Amino acid sequence: MLFAVTMDVAIPHDLDPDVRADTLAREKAYSQDLQRGGEWVSIWRCVGQYSNLSIFDVADNARLHEILWNLPLFPYMTIAVTPLAQHPSDIAAG
Amino acid sequence: MLFAVTMDVAIPHDLDPDVRADTLAREKAYSQDLQRGGEWVSIWRCVGQYSNLSIFDVADNARLHEILWNLPLFPYMTIAVTPLAQHPSDIAAG
Amino acid sequence: MLFAVTMDVAIPHDLDPDVRADTLAREKAYSQDLQRGGEWVSIWRCVGQYSNLSIFDVADNARLHEILWNLPLFPYMTIAVTPLAQHPSDIAAG
Amino acid sequence: MLFAVTMDVAIPHDLDPDVRADTLAREKAYSQDLQRGGEWVSIWRCVGQYSNLSIFDVADNARLHEILWNLPLFPYMTIAVTPLAQHPSDIAAG
Amino acid sequence: MLFAVTMDVAIPHDLDPDVRADTLAREKAYSQDLQRGGEWVSIWRCVGQYSNLSIFDVADNARLHEILWNLPLFPYMTIAVTPLAQHPSDIAAG
Amino acid sequence: MLFAVTMDVAIPHDLDPDVRADTLAREKAYSQDLQRGGEWVSIWRCVGQYSNLSIFDVADNARLHEILWNLPLFPYMTIAVTPLAQHPSDIAAG
Amino acid sequence: MLFAVTMDVAIPHDLDPDVRADTLAREKAYSQDLQRGGEWVSIWRCVGQYSNLSIFDVADNARLHEILWNLPLFPYMTIAVTPLAQHPSDIAAG
Amino acid sequence: MLFAVTMDVAIPHDLDPDVRADTLAREKAYSQDLQRGGEWVSIWRCVGQYSNLSIFDVADNARLHEILWNLPLFPYMTIAVTPLAQHPSDIAAG
Amino acid sequence: MLFAVTMDVAIPHDLDPDVRADTLAREKAYSQDLQRGGEWVSIWRCVGQYSNLSIFDVADNARLHEILWNLPLFPYMTIAVTPLAQHPSDIAAG
Amino acid sequence: MLFAVTMDVAIPHDLDPDVRADTLAREKAYSQDLQRGGEWVSIWRCVGQYSNLSIFDVADNARLHEILWNLPLFPYMTIAVTPLAQHPSDIAAG
Repeated sequence: MLFAVTMDVAIPHDLDPDVRADTLAREKAYSQDLQRGGEWVSIWRCVGQYSNLSIFDVADNARLHEILWNLPLFPYMTIAVTPLAQHPSDIAAG
Repeated sequence: MLFAVTMDVAIPHDLDPDVRADTLAREKAYSQDLQRGGEWVSIWRCVGQYSNLSIFDVADNARLHEILWNLPLFPYMTIAVTPLAQHPSDIAAG
Repeated sequence: MLFAVTMDVAIPHDLDPDVRADTLAREKAYSQDLQRGGEWVSIWRCVGQYSNLSIFDVADNARLHEILWNLPLFPYMTIAVTPLAQHPSDIAAG
Repeated sequence: MLFAVTMDVAIPHDLDPDVRADTLAREKAYSQDLQRGGEWVSIWRCVGQYSNLSIFDVADNARLHEILWNLPLFPYMTIAVTPLAQHPSDIAAG
Repeated sequence: MLFAVTMDVAIPHDLDPDVRADTLAREKAYSQDLQRGGEWVSIWRCVGQYSNLSIFDVADNARLHEILWNLPLFPYMTIAVTPLAQHPSDIAAG
Repeated sequence: MLFAVTMDVAIPHDLDPDVRADTLAREKAYSQDLQRGGEWVSIWRCVGQYSNLSIFDVADNARLHEILWNLPLFPYMTIAVTPLAQHPSDIAAG
Repeated sequence: MLFAVTMDVAIPHDLDPDVRADTLAREKAYSQDLQRGGEWVSIWRCVGQYSNLSIFDVADNARLHEILWNLPLFPYMTIAVTPLAQHPSDIAAG
Repeated sequence: MLFAVTMDVAIPHDLDPDVRADTLAREKAYSQDLQRGGEWVSIWRCVGQYSNLSIFDVADNARLHEILWNLPLFPYMTIAVTPLAQHPSDIAAG
Repeated sequence: MLFAVTMDVAIPHDLDPDVRADTLAREKAYSQDLQRGGEWVSIWRCVGQYSNLSIFDVADNARLHEILWNLPLFPYMTIAVTPLAQHPSDIAAG
Repeated sequence: MLFAVTMDVAIPHDLDPDVRADTLAREKAYSQDLQRGGEWVSIWRCVGQYSNLSIFDVADNARLHEILWNLPLFPYMTIAVTPLAQHPSDIAAG
């Protein structure tokens, strides 16, 4: 089941630099594990923004929430979720 | 070069039914030609909306505008364009 | 899988009264069939609005879209969809 | 009398961890007491958000305000209240 | 139980003048009956707007919806409802 | 001359508790003096909000500004002012 | 008593040209009468907009509403009203 | 050349009181110098707001920016600029 | 004196095709005359939108308004005007 | 390939003055290098705002993101990106 998710990041300017670096490293590893597992299908940088647009393919709403809630950057993110369905014009729709 | 595009459709209620049906058929064919050509990479229906989220891979801004401007439904669409770049956490980034 | 859906209705003032009456009757029957089937769990009127707040329990995104897209009033509705998950404070969470 | 309430939580990043943990524990207990008492009818997590959508069944406006004002997380919440009424298409409407 | 309600009126420019005059006359009579009955406590014109701010004192949400839904101008109104409670600084609070 | 005023309060989380308590006590006394004097006609709590809706009856714009500017909580408030006039449907309009 | 008023004009495209011309002529005469009478102190065109920013000096809220409500273009206007008071930095404040 | 400018002031609560007092004194002197020089034509307090609406008469855009940028309160202001032109209904238009 | 102007075009779907074609032809000629005259410095299409972003270099506000007000498409446009000044980082600033 | 970019700057009031001065100096040098290189085509100050409107001419989306992401002021900026294409009325369009 597909979802489009946009994540806007706003890390406080006074966050301890070590905490910041550690959080970013964990965020990257966390994302890449889920990409390799097939649930985090795509991640693009929105040009000029500290934001990404991602596509997730998950079993259900609960799993998507679990993934997003546990993002190391979650406390610093504004997230928007759009449930997706197959489009009737999609050539893969047969 | 990648772009995310959302298209919200609002066909006037009093549009002639034949014009409407013809426009929708041309829209579908137009989209599928571009999908087969590789420029219209993905198209998803946004659940509960007369809207889609699409990913385009085009040579430049001019080509993207040409594609969108010539959508048969363009006069009835509200379109938002987000330029995309590779995300540093993308496992395809090497 | 649960979703909250708000539907704001704006029927054009010049819609033919018979078409209007027929559409409303079909909308009611359509909703009640889905309520009896267990997918349309709750429907409440938002006070002072031609709007409802509904809870759906469906198999997946595709099924939710199919239900909403086929609402007889869909062409006259503005719809917002919020995917829901179990809340950790819910006493049913065990 | 039913109300839909959405609560968006934004705990300051510099809140003392002990105060934070204590507040969250009191919030959960407070919510569950009201759930058991029948006034806090439903609570769902909004996917990807530090937010919930809840349904309250209370005697009147004053009681709803008393409940919300005394939420341990109230100082950190943005709350929206929608009064609800029975929908004419509700199969429970007889 | 008190509610603040704002009603913004937008009558279509092409409404038949007789229908318009009749609707406005019925709206005034309807409002004044409810004022005399004590449920429509106050009605003020918002300066420079085709809008009013009103205070209602009704038994419950259902009654407020019944009153608003049956306003002769309801199809042409945008309505916002704010549930009110006694303020702790109100000198009537004792 | 009547005005509707909404006041949304957002006291900084790190305000000294004694300053906070003192400010709230002065705010209440200030409001009640003006209520007794007849200029602050009504004050209601907006349910679920740290906000009030108030009606003022003052000599002119300058007096309203003087009252609002000197609210002890003014530095922490977002205020909206709506000038009111008698509504032609008001049964008090004669 | 001073008020700033912005008026955005949107005349329907299908308004009869004679009605349009007559309405605009009456609007101009109406405005100029009030300017000569001293109540409509200033009127400026907002560059690139079918809008004006005006300053009114009127006895009270009721008079301002009477003036605005009777504008020949009122049915086609979106109006915003801001009550003004003397600024403490105004050199005329003494 | 005329411009309408609104300035909303939000001084941080933790600004040093002496710095605050000094800044406000310099702001007032700065404004009054420009009023006496004829460039800052009008300044009004927006009722209930820490805001003003001002009219400037300056040689060009560059001069207006120079004036606003050097406001002692500029770092704490949100500013909106509206270029003005003579209105055809202005009785001074001849 | 420079201004950035965005123009969003929304031609009514039922506009007579001949009137539409004539208006578009006059719009293009009008724009090109002003480009050749040096006042309409730049015009770009916003990708995927029936909109343009333009830079104007005009004598004053009045001239900019005269240009925009007389655009053949003006009745169908939503226009936003931003006054510009030289940026201190501009290498042309010397 | 052209892009319009608006950058709104909000430097925290408590930023160390030396860090602030250094960041601003690096920002200016960075911008001027890119202006001399031909990628940062234009930069204008928006009058009355700590903002600029810029035109970039870059090879692709990735290059634009690289430029913006590395702005010394990036952590303090809100950025909006609009992809541009040649306008059919542009006299340079031939």
